[in-house]
Amino acid sequence: MTQPAWSSSAIGAVALTDLLGHWSAADGPLYRLLATRIARLADTGELPAGLRLPAERDLAAALSVSRNTVAAAYQVLRDEGMAESRQGAGTRIVPHRTTAAAVHRANGFFAGLLSEAVVEADLSLAAVDCAPQVAAALTDPETLLDRAEREAVIRTDGYFPHGLPELRSAIASHLAERLGLPATSAQVIVTTGAQQALDLLIRTEVLPGQPVAVEDPTFPGVLDALHRAGAAVIGMPAGQGLDPERLEHVVRTHRPAMVYLIPTHHNPTGLVMPAGSRHRVARIAAAYPDTLFIDDMTLAELPLHDGSRIPPLAALAQDHPERPNVVSVGSLSKLYWGGLRTGWISGSEGLIARLVAAKAAADLGSTAFQQATVAALLRGPHEDIVKWRGEWLRARHDALTGALRASLPGWTWPEPDGGLCLWARLPGEADSSAFAQAALRHGVAVVPGRLLSAGSHANDHVRLAFTQPPDALRAAVRQLAAIPGPSR
Amino acid sequence: MTQPAWSSSAIGAVALTDLLGHWSAADGPLYRLLATRIARLADTGELPAGLRLPAERDLAAALSVSRNTVAAAYQVLRDEGMAESRQGAGTRIVPHRTTAAAVHRANGFFAGLLSEAVVEADLSLAAVDCAPQVAAALTDPETLLDRAEREAVIRTDGYFPHGLPELRSAIASHLAERLGLPATSAQVIVTTGAQQALDLLIRTEVLPGQPVAVEDPTFPGVLDALHRAGAAVIGMPAGQGLDPERLEHVVRTHRPAMVYLIPTHHNPTGLVMPAGSRHRVARIAAAYPDTLFIDDMTLAELPLHDGSRIPPLAALAQDHPERPNVVSVGSLSKLYWGGLRTGWISGSEGLIARLVAAKAAADLGSTAFQQATVAALLRGPHEDIVKWRGEWLRARHDALTGALRASLPGWTWPEPDGGLCLWARLPGEADSSAFAQAALRHGVAVVPGRLLSAGSHANDHVRLAFTQPPDALRAAVRQLAAIPGPSR
Repeated sequence: MTQPAWSSSAIGAVALTDLLGHWSAADGPLYRLLATRIARLADTGELPAGLRLPAERDLAAALSVSRNTVAAAYQVLRDEGMAESRQGAGTRIVPHRTTAAAVHRANGFFAGLLSEAVVEADLSLAAVDCAPQVAAALTDPETLLDRAEREAVIRTDGYFPHGLPELRSAIASHLAERLGLPATSAQVIVTTGAQQALDLLIRTEVLPGQPVAVEDPTFPGVLDALHRAGAAVIGMPAGQGLDPERLEHVVRTHRPAMVYLIPTHHNPTGLVMPAGSRHRVARIAAAYPDTLFIDDMTLAELPLHDGSRIPPLAALAQDHPERPNVVSVGSLSKLYWGGLRTGWISGSEGLIARLVAAKAAADLGSTAFQQATVAALLRGPHEDIVKWRGEWLRARHDALTGALRASLPGWTWPEPDGGLCLWARLPGEADSSAFAQAALRHGVAVVPGRLLSAGSHANDHVRLAFTQPPDALRAAVRQLAAIPGPSR
Repeated sequence: MTQPAWSSSAIGAVALTDLLGHWSAADGPLYRLLATRIARLADTGELPAGLRLPAERDLAAALSVSRNTVAAAYQVLRDEGMAESRQGAGTRIVPHRTTAAAVHRANGFFAGLLSEAVVEADLSLAAVDCAPQVAAALTDPETLLDRAEREAVIRTDGYFPHGLPELRSAIASHLAERLGLPATSAQVIVTTGAQQALDLLIRTEVLPGQPVAVEDPTFPGVLDALHRAGAAVIGMPAGQGLDPERLEHVVRTHRPAMVYLIPTHHNPTGLVMPAGSRHRVARIAAAYPDTLFIDDMTLAELPLHDGSRIPPLAALAQDHPERPNVVSVGSLSKLYWGGLRTGWISGSEGLIARLVAAKAAADLGSTAFQQATVAALLRGPHEDIVKWRGEWLRARHDALTGALRASLPGWTWPEPDGGLCLWARLPGEADSSAFAQAALRHGVAVVPGRLLSAGSHANDHVRLAFTQPPDALRAAVRQLAAIPGPSR
């Protein structure tokens, strides 16, 4: 099911850096923080017994610390019986309290989310606060749901692998009326966020070893799910937008099981794929019916500027109803609140039936009652929330870009059409992994480009989420600007 | 990832029967209902193009219908261009609107849950109605949560792959104080029901092809998750309780990656594993540290009789803290309501860390706000709910067993200690698959024993859930008693 990230019983400095996450964001000397975090990873089995740790010099470079810091951390591990060093064989984790079980592949992006360390300014997670209309509905559902609507949920057995019928229907109307994607309830499954939507699609439609093509950079959550499923991930350069020629070449050459795209407000670039390219992608999908094309619309309702809506890929594919291989995925996490964990997949009835069976085995359905509340939000104050979030978004975007232009004039980024992030290129020969480590010690978390790249490229980029309040963003940029080195 | 249930492009009569689910629970002639359901399965790709359908005679026997009914259904499929028949080659599904994608393994148990057919009396799903204390808390959270508790959730970004801290802590206290299982928050992960708990454990700890031992019969949800993961499932007879000798033999011989047990109010028998056997299992676990032992406690708080609590396996394993291979799983679905979808896993901190990383990739965490409500229910009216549900349970158990003794005196079952089901043996040479088909046409859904069996045994048993109101249970038994044949 999962493959160890190290095949030869050794872990590289960069892979270990990913596993370490926000290791330095705590009080105490760096060598002690580093030793504590490595010991913790050994305890959990993420660093299995016998594994060789990176050479001190390599790990020091990857972490942007002195070699003495790593040497002292390794010494602590030896003193505590967690590691041993032998001449010529390096430093290895000693068998101790690990369980004998499959290890999972390192994922440095989620390491931050899973860590309990607190950073002053987290620009690494593109998570929004809860919209006030949503908070009111959650704390007092009776304001939105009448007695009959509440009892329509409460009086059932509570198991809805397809999703609550009221929410499926509300999502289908939302897609048809607001997003330009005609859909019926039977073409919709409700998921626990877009992350589960992607995981279910991958588990159902991709076999281990099959190729899957993604934009590079892309949403790191899909990379984690693909790696766990054993897919062979193919990256297609997309830092300035995806070239459909390149896509056609990859599909023709590799015949991937799946192509995952974010055509509207791409994560992380924020760009919109132009109409011409979309039509081209729809034609490629029609020509390759054995490949499933995923249009991730999670950020579609987060435009930074007014403008006409560009139809989703699945709407263009409707000229080819006999080719149900274009699928849409979405979520309310970035518009309403991530804590809702409400996502959806829209596809052919056949695909939805297979996904529902997979969801039954995965969790028997998402939390039931809240689905009634979310359906009422979609039918009620949705447009107010879109308007409120739009203002929220533009204030934060303007604060971050203004501060960067003033304090870090060497940084460049494609001007985003929407979404929650900047995809910023550091000046000169900067190493964004090392820069991210240094930033963490200045209290600011950013995502080094490598973690959003299928091929661990993009090491001269960082992803900056502008989801913190404007003042926090300006303060974070001041901290980033104080970091010495080639990033200036 | 998943394997087709048919390797040779043919599907057996029993496998197709499982996929058909509640096909006959609708209005109209049987042949038309059968053809419609097969066509639907072809549409969804569950019956892929080219697949050979069973011989008419075999399918008729499996469905307990006349051969003419199957012949007429196949004719409808041919007339509608969904199937073709050739001399000597049988009847095959014709390529039409199916998508070219992986098919999933048939699971007849969930087919009922996924079907939209309505039966008069569903004795197949062991799902409870929503406890009134829980319904009140969901519709008006402010009665249980003060402003600070509400804002402690709403003011976060909403992503809790570990579970909301308040709920992890409430579950740890609940385990320690009520269920005899000392645990800290760091030893707990919150899941979307026990089904996700099992799926995460299997995805993280079992590789494709590895053996996993289960009681036979057992909870069908674990069988589905194991089959999808490609595990080699080994059944251990447990119709009258599991013999620890047999368990030790299986573990010694097969060295399974995982052993899944339901020691308290077993599903479906309702039996409690005696204290002596539990100590023996704990010793086996200590002797085989590479095997993970799962104690599913989902039904533990549903006793039918007063009596002293028997400690969970993990409590007995605490004499061996260096062997963290005994793991507990539970859920509030059967006590509070299935619609909460609140489950948990308790294990070593290392295992929990691996599971949290897997949950991040699966769905980034369960729905956030409701977790605060559930934590307040665990800390508040929990004992009232246990008492209320106990009375609810005994009334239903007594209604079902009384009606069976009066109307179907040839049926026998082990007297359950708790839980929601009877594991009833039909008299004589009865075929429970055929009986379940006949029952469906009398408006009553029951689970044929085969679907709860790792090896498709137990065809002389049915599982009867006593979760409907007492009068509905008595009416259902009257319907069952009206079915002609050897079941009397």
